[in-house]
This record gives sequence, structure tokens and C-alpha cells, in this order.
Amino acid sequence: MSNSLNTISTILTDEKSTDKKDLYLNPNIIGLKESPTLRINQHCKELAAQGRHVYKLGLGQSPFPVPEPVVNALRLYAPQKDYLPVQGLPELRKAVAEFHRKKDGVDIMPGNVIIGPGSKELLFLLQMVFDGEVITPSPSWVSYVPQAKIIGNTIHVLHTTSSAQWRLKPEQLDEFCRKNNSNGNKKYLLILNYPGNPDGITYGRESIMELAETARRNNIFILSDEIYGQLHHAGNHVSIAKYYPEGTIISSGLSKWCGAGGWRLGTFSFPPNLRWLLEAMAAVASETYTSVSAPIQYAAVQAFLCGAEIENYLWHVRKILSLLGNEFAAIIKQGNIVVNDPTGGFYLFIDLTPLKKKLNNRGILNSTLLCDRLLEETGIAILPGVDFNRPPDELSARLSYVDFDGAKALAASYTIPLHEKLPENFLAQYCGNVIEAAIKIVEWANRPD
Amino acid sequence: MSNSLNTISTILTDEKSTDKKDLYLNPNIIGLKESPTLRINQHCKELAAQGRHVYKLGLGQSPFPVPEPVVNALRLYAPQKDYLPVQGLPELRKAVAEFHRKKDGVDIMPGNVIIGPGSKELLFLLQMVFDGEVITPSPSWVSYVPQAKIIGNTIHVLHTTSSAQWRLKPEQLDEFCRKNNSNGNKKYLLILNYPGNPDGITYGRESIMELAETARRNNIFILSDEIYGQLHHAGNHVSIAKYYPEGTIISSGLSKWCGAGGWRLGTFSFPPNLRWLLEAMAAVASETYTSVSAPIQYAAVQAFLCGAEIENYLWHVRKILSLLGNEFAAIIKQGNIVVNDPTGGFYLFIDLTPLKKKLNNRGILNSTLLCDRLLEETGIAILPGVDFNRPPDELSARLSYVDFDGAKALAASYTIPLHEKLPENFLAQYCGNVIEAAIKIVEWANRPD
Repeated sequence: MSNSLNTISTILTDEKSTDKKDLYLNPNIIGLKESPTLRINQHCKELAAQGRHVYKLGLGQSPFPVPEPVVNALRLYAPQKDYLPVQGLPELRKAVAEFHRKKDGVDIMPGNVIIGPGSKELLFLLQMVFDGEVITPSPSWVSYVPQAKIIGNTIHVLHTTSSAQWRLKPEQLDEFCRKNNSNGNKKYLLILNYPGNPDGITYGRESIMELAETARRNNIFILSDEIYGQLHHAGNHVSIAKYYPEGTIISSGLSKWCGAGGWRLGTFSFPPNLRWLLEAMAAVASETYTSVSAPIQYAAVQAFLCGAEIENYLWHVRKILSLLGNEFAAIIKQGNIVVNDPTGGFYLFIDLTPLKKKLNNRGILNSTLLCDRLLEETGIAILPGVDFNRPPDELSARLSYVDFDGAKALAASYTIPLHEKLPENFLAQYCGNVIEAAIKIVEWANRPD
Repeated sequence: MSNSLNTISTILTDEKSTDKKDLYLNPNIIGLKESPTLRINQHCKELAAQGRHVYKLGLGQSPFPVPEPVVNALRLYAPQKDYLPVQGLPELRKAVAEFHRKKDGVDIMPGNVIIGPGSKELLFLLQMVFDGEVITPSPSWVSYVPQAKIIGNTIHVLHTTSSAQWRLKPEQLDEFCRKNNSNGNKKYLLILNYPGNPDGITYGRESIMELAETARRNNIFILSDEIYGQLHHAGNHVSIAKYYPEGTIISSGLSKWCGAGGWRLGTFSFPPNLRWLLEAMAAVASETYTSVSAPIQYAAVQAFLCGAEIENYLWHVRKILSLLGNEFAAIIKQGNIVVNDPTGGFYLFIDLTPLKKKLNNRGILNSTLLCDRLLEETGIAILPGVDFNRPPDELSARLSYVDFDGAKALAASYTIPLHEKLPENFLAQYCGNVIEAAIKIVEWANRPD
């Protein structure tokens, strides 16, 4: 017995013996790193603390403040201290259902909405309770695949192309099912995210209808991650739930359109016939996070009611993001870098393959090196394509064009009527850092070997 | 293919075919119900909405308001919208470390503290990343075992007895290890909770030292759930981390001593040599809840700094709980019901075994029926012993003596100097409902067959 005691003591005290510690870790967790988007955020803070000028295009955080009526509601409800129902505050579930009715033309019953501490947590619960396989197009958001790995789920990544605007084609989905589910017995959950992270592009109505039809034909459930829905630059978001209501779960939350990422509140809305999935999630929620912070839920009611002040806020936010995103893309394109014009959210997914030879000569052989070297040599933080499930040697990357003072930009935009264009010098004045980063990326990528 | 399509359509549309839906559910989740404490809370609300007078001794929620300085801090920090570091706001981790140094005499480094949306969620992550077996005494808190089941962990329940004040004895732990780990190769996590839920009893210094020594000798890690530590009625909480620092993780949070259950903020504090467990938890956290709500974390700094106003609040809270808990126990004992005098928290664990024959004659054969019938016939909601891992036919139950207006009671207590006793009519005046429930339980239990 004394021998084994010694062994364990070594494990406990020798901090370098990582492999030995792995004996004490769930095999699904070993080697798991902190989510890249959060890691880059910390890394930028550390570099800034060292006095370096950093262009923070890594973390996808809305630069805009939480709308005033929502902040005021949080102040008002600060004393709320009771545990709320696991599924969420009834008034909030009602507001979320009404939000989807009004915004998306989709009928959701308040009883079929669940509130979680971020839609990421809700998706984790869904992946945990669902006993089937997951499908997601690539590039895709950083957390879908790691979640599947933690849980031990099978996840299939369907690659899309830049020339197809990184869109999943219905025939691709059909083909996948023909190959993998010829007897129709497998259970699939397709995760779609539009307007997309990392691509900033969305699906038009036609494509949405075709995808809906394909999913229905193949009995695939859809988790429709529409967290950027209200940030469609033209306010034209179309939910697939409208065309495949019986098989679609809509994901939304406060993080993006409401600027409240740090508040941690996400929502899933289910059709009545998938309520059993919600119930299984709620049972796990009751044994994990219990319920979302009460003051935050009360404040969120104000957000989802989406009154005139918030609607006005949203239109100004869209106007700024659209101008900036398109300008960024225009600059980037001049540098022999492939990018699609954005239609929603605040991301661009760039592809430096046309410069591959040049970059390879500089020792930049994959997307990780691309981003490491860019940060080191210019102070610009972006995330490698590989984090979004692209092939490692594809020279792709995601950038979030959010490194500006959103409160100031918004205040300036508020002084200009919505139907008028923002003045020519608006971006230089309020988003100068981002524009500078775009120019520097082009210069850096095109440097002589 | 059309056959299988039909099968799946049936599953999707027939809401009653629960078994078929189970095909789509993770086997570990099937049959999982919402946590009993949260379920009873909802049930009480529904009964009250039907116009019934309900004595809400089910959910273990602090009846006291969140201290004013903490609520004011939440108001002040309402606009905080940034994603915070996964591990938690650095100022908060510093305050938590200082809290444990001051309160428990334990050295914690701020870098070894992790903040989660409730300590329940943190425990779930710990159970998820730890690749070993879990041990917990019974009666034990409702969530330890279901969490293990969801994750698929092995959990061992060590039964204690009322005559031993529901305390785990060191020799019991030793014997367990001799039987189950004779070669010393197994990895164990012991979950201890004191002052205890559901028992309201704690360990004295001597017992804590002996348990620490036993755990050390057997290489068992301890998760020390000290969420009620500051509610030790005499302010004499002793943490096992003081005597087994290298193997103990301390769990705390705002829910109980700070009256902010609905805010959802828990903390785990690690010794340096178990930091790798924290890191694994943080990696999973970054793929699930991301970080705890920013305004809540900023407000929590104020709580953990535990200034004079909060210390004063705590002494008054303890004074009220001690008086009420002991009075409740005294009444209960008169009714031939076994109960121990409480020393912390706001629970009593009662055992009606002396009335077994009488109760059996009334068709009350187990703790579930006991609580169902009590609620039905008197409106008193308490939770059956079986939910706390007691044998189903043991006529035991947990009650939370919290169904009173804590704000009013506290305001009244504030007018009386701390060193003076509360007046004789204090409980009748401010906790009348709870005292009434105690009397009714005795009457009900001793009814003629």
C-alpha cells in the first residue's frame, strides 16, 4: 500500500507530471484547451498590459453598449433573489415567444421556451440529452465540435467553399444522408448558424426553403443558431423555423444583438412536438446551473419586448456594422485576399490562399502560423481557420471588426437620420483602429518574402 | 425508406409515446426528473395559486434579503457587459481567497479560485472531469447522486445514523477503503457537506481533524461543500481544508449566507497541487457557460469582502435561525419524532420511525407517501428522506424552516443589541407560520389511525 501512496503523492505534488495527472481526468477532457475565442481575448489583454498596441479582432463581442432600458431594468430588479423556475421566468419566456412571432413569423408557445446561461450552455445540454449524431457545416462556430467531443458524440463536418459563400447546399445534405443513413434509422441534429459566425453571411429565403425541405425529407432535426438574426445588416433575417417548424429549435440570446455577451443569457425555442427534448434538458439544467440569474432574467424581458428605443438602437447598429464590414472587405480584396461581402453580424472569414506561395516562403504553412505571425509582427489578433474546422493548411482566418468604441459610434449615428447615409469620415473618426487593421493585414500579407 | 420515415414521424408527433422518444435520449438521462427541491417549489406555487395555504418548508432558500451593499453594487455595475475570464473576475477571485483566509484560516491563491453559475454547476464540472469514483455520506444533498448518474460516474453512498447525528465516522471511511481499495489504485472524491443539507448539523474540530487524517491516509480528495459555513449558528465553522489543505477543494457561494440563491454564483477554491483539476474544469466551462454574469460577479466582490455591515447581517441571521431551528426541534421532539438540535444552516432532518406502526396503519409506508400525505392533509411541504439517499421505507424527511419574511424578521432583530436575547414573542410575531407548521406536523403524525 505504501508504494501506491507514493505514486499518488507524486501525482499530487509534481506539477509538471501532466501525463500522470491525466490518469485522474476523464479521457474526453484530456488535452481540451480553453475555447479559442476566449483564449485570444485573454492573450490580447496580456499583450496590452505589456504596453503593446493590439488590434483586438479576435473575440466576437458586440462593441455596442447594452441598450439603456435594459440596463435600467437590471438596476430596478437588482433585489430579485429568488430561485426562478428551471425553464426560466414565465414573463421572459412569453417575451421570447412574442419576439420570435414578431421578428420571424414563427409560432412559439411560451411553455416551449427555455432560458439558459448563454445559448452555448443550452447547446451543450441539447448535445448531452440527444442520443444521435450531429452535423455541422464548416467553417462553423468554435464550440460545436469541442462540445461533441466532451460529451463523446459523433459529429460530422460538411465542408463548404468560399465560392459558394460558405453556404451548405441542400444537395450536399442529401448526399450525406444517402451515404450515411441509407436505411433511415440514424438520428441526426443539424446545427445551422446564420448570419454566420465565422463568415458574416446568411441564407436567402430560397436557400432556407430548400434546406428546410431537405431536412424534412431526411428527418433531421435542426438547431438553428440565430443569435445574429437581429444583426442582419438589412434587417431581413429569415428563420428556417418558418419553413420547417416541426423540426427546428431556434437559438437566440442577449449576447450579440443586445450587446450583453457578459450577462450570459441564451434562449432555445422548441416546437410542441420536440418538447420532450426541452424537458430532458430542463431536468439536466436542474442538476447543473439550476436557473439563470434572476435579476438578469427580469432585465432580459425588457430586451425581448424590443420596444421602440431598442428597435432604433438595432437599426443604427446595423447601419454602422454594414458600412464598416463592407469597407473592411473592400480593403481586404485589394490585397489579393479572398473574402465575401458581409450580410450580417460582425465577422469576415478571409482566405489567403492566393498568397499561399509567398506566405509559405515566409514559413507560414498553416492558419495557426498565419495568425501567430500576424499577431507577432503587426499586433493584429484574429483566429485561424482551423479553429472553425477548416483544413489546417488552408490559410483562412476569422476576424471580428469590433475593435472600436461602440458607445461613441452609436451616439454619433443617433445624430444622423436613419434614412441618411453616415458621413464619409465616419469610419475614420469612429472605427479608425479597425480600418487601420484592414490596411495593415493587406500590407503584411503582401510583404516581399 | 418510407417505413422508417413513418416510424420517425410517429415519434415526432405522438406526444404520448414517451418510450419511443426515449430512443432519442441519452440513456443516462432517461427517467431523470427535475431536481426535487426545485420541483417542490413549483408545486407549492401552483397549490398557492389554487388558493391553498401552503407551508413552504420544501425549497432550501434563504428567507433573508441580499445585504444592501451587495444589491447596491449590482445596481452600480449593471452596465458591465464584457465577457469576463472563464475562471472569473480577478478582483472577485482575490476577494474569495481573502474570505477563506479570514474566515477559515486557509491559504488560497486567487489564481486557484474558479467562479461558476452556482456551486452545483461547478460540482457537475468537477464530477465530469474527474476520472474516479465518488463517495458521499447519506443523508446527502439531492444533487450529488443524480449528477453522477448523468455523467455515468460510480458513486458510493455511506449511510450514517441519526444517533450519530448523521455524521460520517472516520472508521467508516477507513473500512470502505479497506474493502474497496485494498491495492490503493482507485481514485476517490469524497463529498462532505457541513453544516449539512439536509441535516442542519456540522462537524466539530476534533471530528474534522480525524476525517482529514483518514482522507490523507487513504489518498482521497475531498470536495468540501461549505456553502452553509457562514450560517454556523454560533459562527464557529471549521473547514477541513485547514487540516487537509493539499487534498481539499472548498465549495462556497452567494446562495445561502448571502441570501442570493437566485443570483447563481458559486466558488471552488483549490490547493496549488490540484490546480490541474481546476484547469480541466475551466476548459469545459469555456465550452459551456463561458463565464458567470458580469454584473453579478462585480456585485459579488462586495459580498466576499464581507465588510462590517455584512458581518452584522450574518450575526443577526444566525441568531434568528438558531432560535427558530431549536424551537422547531423542541416542538418536534415532543411528538415522538426523532430530530437532532441544529447547529447551522436552516434545515432539520426528522425521523418518524418511532411512529412507524401508527403511520403504516394509515397507509404511510415510505418517506414519499409520508410527504405526499402530509402536504395533502395539512398543506405542509417537506421533502422525503429518499430524495436524500435514505432507504425508501425509512420514514425520514427534510424540512427547511424558512417560510417567513426574512426582511421583517431581520429589521426587528436589528433593533435589539446582538448580545441580548430576542424577545419571547419574536418567533410568534415573525416566524409564526413556521412554528404553526411544527405544531401541525406533530399533531398530524400522532393522529389516531
